[in-house]
Amino acid sequence: MNKYIAQINKIFSDFINCQINFHPDRIFKEILEYVLGDVSQAKRLRPFLAAIFCEKFFNLDINQIKNFIIAIELIHNYSLIHDDLPAIDNDDFRRGKLSVHKKFGEHNAILFADSLHSLAFELISHPDNCKNFTADIILKIVYFFSQTIGGKGLIYGETLDINCAKGNINNITIDYINLIHYHKTAQIFGFCTSLGALLSGKNEKIFNEFYQFGIEYGLVFQLIDDIDDYNKLKNTDELNILKYMNKSEVLQLINEKILIIKNFILQYKLSVDEMKFFDPIFNILDSFKK
Amino acid sequence: MNKYIAQINKIFSDFINCQINFHPDRIFKEILEYVLGDVSQAKRLRPFLAAIFCEKFFNLDINQIKNFIIAIELIHNYSLIHDDLPAIDNDDFRRGKLSVHKKFGEHNAILFADSLHSLAFELISHPDNCKNFTADIILKIVYFFSQTIGGKGLIYGETLDINCAKGNINNITIDYINLIHYHKTAQIFGFCTSLGALLSGKNEKIFNEFYQFGIEYGLVFQLIDDIDDYNKLKNTDELNILKYMNKSEVLQLINEKILIIKNFILQYKLSVDEMKFFDPIFNILDSFKK
Repeated sequence: MNKYIAQINKIFSDFINCQINFHPDRIFKEILEYVLGDVSQAKRLRPFLAAIFCEKFFNLDINQIKNFIIAIELIHNYSLIHDDLPAIDNDDFRRGKLSVHKKFGEHNAILFADSLHSLAFELISHPDNCKNFTADIILKIVYFFSQTIGGKGLIYGETLDINCAKGNINNITIDYINLIHYHKTAQIFGFCTSLGALLSGKNEKIFNEFYQFGIEYGLVFQLIDDIDDYNKLKNTDELNILKYMNKSEVLQLINEKILIIKNFILQYKLSVDEMKFFDPIFNILDSFKK
Repeated sequence: MNKYIAQINKIFSDFINCQINFHPDRIFKEILEYVLGDVSQAKRLRPFLAAIFCEKFFNLDINQIKNFIIAIELIHNYSLIHDDLPAIDNDDFRRGKLSVHKKFGEHNAILFADSLHSLAFELISHPDNCKNFTADIILKIVYFFSQTIGGKGLIYGETLDINCAKGNINNITIDYINLIHYHKTAQIFGFCTSLGALLSGKNEKIFNEFYQFGIEYGLVFQLIDDIDDYNKLKNTDELNILKYMNKSEVLQLINEKILIIKNFILQYKLSVDEMKFFDPIFNILDSFKK
């Protein structure tokens, strides 16, 4: 497990150093270092999930897939920076530090996040990736990724969420909240867990199985995040499932999804040692049970 | 010429109808119609330039390249919407109508533009494009496009521009302004004029020739735009080359670039009728001479 953490941290520090040495824009470098450079703050959960699934189930070495997992983390950060803006969630802090717009100005925050968005696609389509994968497969990933993060994916979830938080939606149902969680959070987890299946050219059945696992994991992750946020009551305007369901109902939802995750683990007959691959998942579940 | 205009308008109206029929997000559809649906307002200059160059020099039918030219226009609009935001240029109007954030709210403007950004990559990587071009070529275009519009391209130009307008740069030189024009404006024109060379798998020499033509055209375009803006004096904070050079110096710069454009036209031995392909360029030049 520590091996993965060390490898991922190395990949990110190499990436940051490379950008800092060769990027033309001083402001970009400063913000990149601020946002991605702090190892103690950056959880890198999504790259981690993608990397362990690629190696465990599809025999892909982490160095073969590094551009893809960096791209995932860049998109996660671009979406957080735009989310924190005054016009959206208006958060002054993120992970205990000033948010990017508070630290560097709103104009630099908007444009920096925009550049991460493009850079993610630059990394996915980088010529180096063709050493390990065919152009045909990489192009399919560009397409899948753009749908996952775009106006029918991540941004659809964000738009539903913010318009809900701003009181523009009259009748907020559980289905509506589930729709937000699915688009805003779960789809990117689905991308992470199914990336290996796509890169190895596996058939649709296998792809779907791994994708669906990521979706369920993402939905559990978001439910637990909601519980965590609700206890902190940091921003009462923000959408939270606990405003619409009581804790025992949310617990039941989570238990259903944990069952799906456990079935997946049983199906793949994981040993106790291999189970360590799922530590990030179970750490979250454990923190919930407390 | 009218044939092109009709074809491009048809491609965009089909695209808009398709999005309006199948996109899940009501707000996205409303803003898309508002921003791209008004034929009288949308100049669609970049798609136009890409289309005529693809057909004239590389025998590519406009319908083969439609996803690429729509992508170019989506990126142009995403960048305008973010540019107009209060934290950047703070423009309440665009092409005589309320800007997107004034009409639909800042949160929707930020997120809608973000979704155009992703959608451009979705269109370029769309499986339909593989009917006409190899995955290898399309992947190269994804890479080239992401660099053109990203933090080393368009966004670099935007960042230099806004930090200059906000008074964060002490010594603004002509070279600095040229750097902004090159990244903010000219590179995307270079993409448009060289797209056909890339799609046809032409060698680097031919690619460079067409790319360089687009760069020069883009630089002239921006100089003329600056003159136009300066006369209107619509926003005195905005960067304008006429604050740093007098009109006769700008004229000399433009004349040098027009010479390059004319040499290109001579080199390709265009007939009077074929010269009509360049009407958009010469319309701009004519308007400047007046």
